[in-house]
Amino acid sequence: MKELNNTVRGTKDLLPCNVEIRDFVINKITETYQKFGFRKIETPSLENLAILCDGEGGENEKLIFKILKRGEKLDLNQPNISLENLCDLGLRFDLTVPLSRFVAGNFSKLSFPFKSIQIGRVWRAEKPQKGRLREFVQCDIDVIGDSSIVAEVELILAATEALLNIGFDNFTVHINDRRFLTALAFEAGFLDSETHDKIFIILDKFDKIGLKGISDELKSSGFNSEKVDNLINKIQELDKLSISLDNNLEQILTSINQELKCEFLTLLDTLNELSDGKFKIKFDPFLVRGMSYYTGPIFEIKLESFNSSIAGGGRYDKMIGKRLGKEIPACGFSIGFERIITILEESKFIPPTVNKSIVVIYEEGISLPALFKYTKALIKENYKVFIELRKKNLKKQLDIFKENNVNYFVFFKEKEAREINVIS
Amino acid sequence: MKELNNTVRGTKDLLPCNVEIRDFVINKITETYQKFGFRKIETPSLENLAILCDGEGGENEKLIFKILKRGEKLDLNQPNISLENLCDLGLRFDLTVPLSRFVAGNFSKLSFPFKSIQIGRVWRAEKPQKGRLREFVQCDIDVIGDSSIVAEVELILAATEALLNIGFDNFTVHINDRRFLTALAFEAGFLDSETHDKIFIILDKFDKIGLKGISDELKSSGFNSEKVDNLINKIQELDKLSISLDNNLEQILTSINQELKCEFLTLLDTLNELSDGKFKIKFDPFLVRGMSYYTGPIFEIKLESFNSSIAGGGRYDKMIGKRLGKEIPACGFSIGFERIITILEESKFIPPTVNKSIVVIYEEGISLPALFKYTKALIKENYKVFIELRKKNLKKQLDIFKENNVNYFVFFKEKEAREINVIS
Repeated sequence: MKELNNTVRGTKDLLPCNVEIRDFVINKITETYQKFGFRKIETPSLENLAILCDGEGGENEKLIFKILKRGEKLDLNQPNISLENLCDLGLRFDLTVPLSRFVAGNFSKLSFPFKSIQIGRVWRAEKPQKGRLREFVQCDIDVIGDSSIVAEVELILAATEALLNIGFDNFTVHINDRRFLTALAFEAGFLDSETHDKIFIILDKFDKIGLKGISDELKSSGFNSEKVDNLINKIQELDKLSISLDNNLEQILTSINQELKCEFLTLLDTLNELSDGKFKIKFDPFLVRGMSYYTGPIFEIKLESFNSSIAGGGRYDKMIGKRLGKEIPACGFSIGFERIITILEESKFIPPTVNKSIVVIYEEGISLPALFKYTKALIKENYKVFIELRKKNLKKQLDIFKENNVNYFVFFKEKEAREINVIS
Repeated sequence: MKELNNTVRGTKDLLPCNVEIRDFVINKITETYQKFGFRKIETPSLENLAILCDGEGGENEKLIFKILKRGEKLDLNQPNISLENLCDLGLRFDLTVPLSRFVAGNFSKLSFPFKSIQIGRVWRAEKPQKGRLREFVQCDIDVIGDSSIVAEVELILAATEALLNIGFDNFTVHINDRRFLTALAFEAGFLDSETHDKIFIILDKFDKIGLKGISDELKSSGFNSEKVDNLINKIQELDKLSISLDNNLEQILTSINQELKCEFLTLLDTLNELSDGKFKIKFDPFLVRGMSYYTGPIFEIKLESFNSSIAGGGRYDKMIGKRLGKEIPACGFSIGFERIITILEESKFIPPTVNKSIVVIYEEGISLPALFKYTKALIKENYKVFIELRKKNLKKQLDIFKENNVNYFVFFKEKEAREINVIS
């Protein structure tokens, strides 16, 4: 009996106290993003498999929950049953692939630059394990149709402001550019660009395995030892530059053109100046970001007290164009919603409430119209009102409310209520 | 190319103007329900098929989107392939079945009466046709653990207040009781209670086919002609009583006990008194509600200018107990979210906005830090700010903003902004 009432493995029920934190965070994020001119869109959870399996989703395409065909389309008696003839739809595994379909499918209805907010559930058929969800919420903003770094500045300012509004401080925005990584690889001697993704994936492990680990793994993966040393040296030199890149950037990355360098410095300077000292900006030459679709600046926000990132994004100028049939620049930033919720819940965060909350305790046989008139009067005074029949153990009854941040109660007897009391 | 960018049939993309209406409605409903002491919960979209196919879902169980098994669990080469060995999960088709699993699965963590709000997507593999969605939002409140009509009053007051807050008026709450329907059927001579559901389903068509239609269909379905006439007569008599039921109710439904009659009258009286003349209450003996799980009062809200209902619910005291292993009373009310959105969109409803909106038009080469400092200052003054590079056709550029209810603009040149203008 009990097991039958479990959720599907890797998914979970959200109790009121869970939802209250999540809604607080969603409201803060949405409110902040809207002030920066972003507007919410929604796409269906279901997409045609042809959309989901177009190659841009990388490893995630292997994790699609596939939906069985229905009615006449489903034939279990056919001779050679295959996935292709059993399934036509799938659940989305991220919000980026649906966004590219959305922009292409609604192109004539949108004006550009188009600045979207997406907050929604996504599904991945991961092996169930602790802390890994198979159904979770993603929270993305994207600027479609702006090739300038104004897009990057808007995204990063909006996301950092949202995090500050939730209550986070002590975080750093790490910034790099995929074109630097490519330049680094070429300058180190890796001339075949097809190998770059493999190199970058190993570089991305810097946080976990350190410089020596990267070097060892690159060499043991068959990359030329001398070139690997070249690469590591260059990255180390870049890393020393930190925020005061200035002219030194050019000396290390000789193949980077002046315009790109200038743009990158403006991005860092602008963010630095706008941060008001509330967060840090760091040029991070080790930053890679997993997805191969990034084409320009990439960024990640790390909480200083945690090892891992709480937001990430970057420019992906080629992806939407592929679907649309003509190129359109794009840049996005995703807040790690579930990670933020976990951090807040572990730190016993209690979302601030706008309304005072009160329990109206009534007794059997009272006048219902009178009870509800009184309730409506309290609601008009901006109370959140919980009505409950008096239980045998009144103290326990009130204690449960107090645990849920309801601090006032009143007895409703016969036709009227006594004075409002504080639950002590 | 174009077709590839379509949504799955029966699902749709939501543009910013669509989401803004939906969010307005969701916020009004949530805010109102919370003031009445309801609290939000969420359950996963995916449920084990054993949960979804437990018989309580009626016809909806035939419309489940089923998820293919994954990894080793999926064997396409087995000799006798069946649905059972291909699929393990499904997408929820309503929020009531998941609620009953939620209450049973989290019983020890909840305090009762438990008053939940659920707003979420559900999926039904309907034959795609105009206006019929395969992915849509449901919006439910439920009171679990209160057998008194306080639950009904709370649900109906909260839902009507939510509708009033959205801006609806001119609606009527139709109320009936499943126990009256059962008494009617017995008194008319239909002694086999197994036939009642079939009779009720035909009665439910009153709005569409009228009294004569019901009578004809009952008779042609094989029900005894004299008994059918009995039934119709009794309903007609009840219908004449309308709201002033009083003692007459007992004279018609002789088998109804005094307590039930009294309770029902108190429910009607309380709602009438609390309606403040803002909506109507009507005893409607023709009201049936489709689902067979209802056990007591049932209710539906109809907009006078529309033929169909915009909300419906009732008491279902047996359903959750089946899953939990012990009886627990329950009562719920569901607002027809998608129908309300359709009505608002068709009436060109524009949700009121809290923030003034402004476009900051900038030119190439301006100082980015200065532009964004200015933007942040506007945001601090509670503006919603859209930043855009000046386009060749400025008038067209501003017109698009005006269409989206952005009424102010400002030019940002070199290092500063000129005065704020109204888009005319």
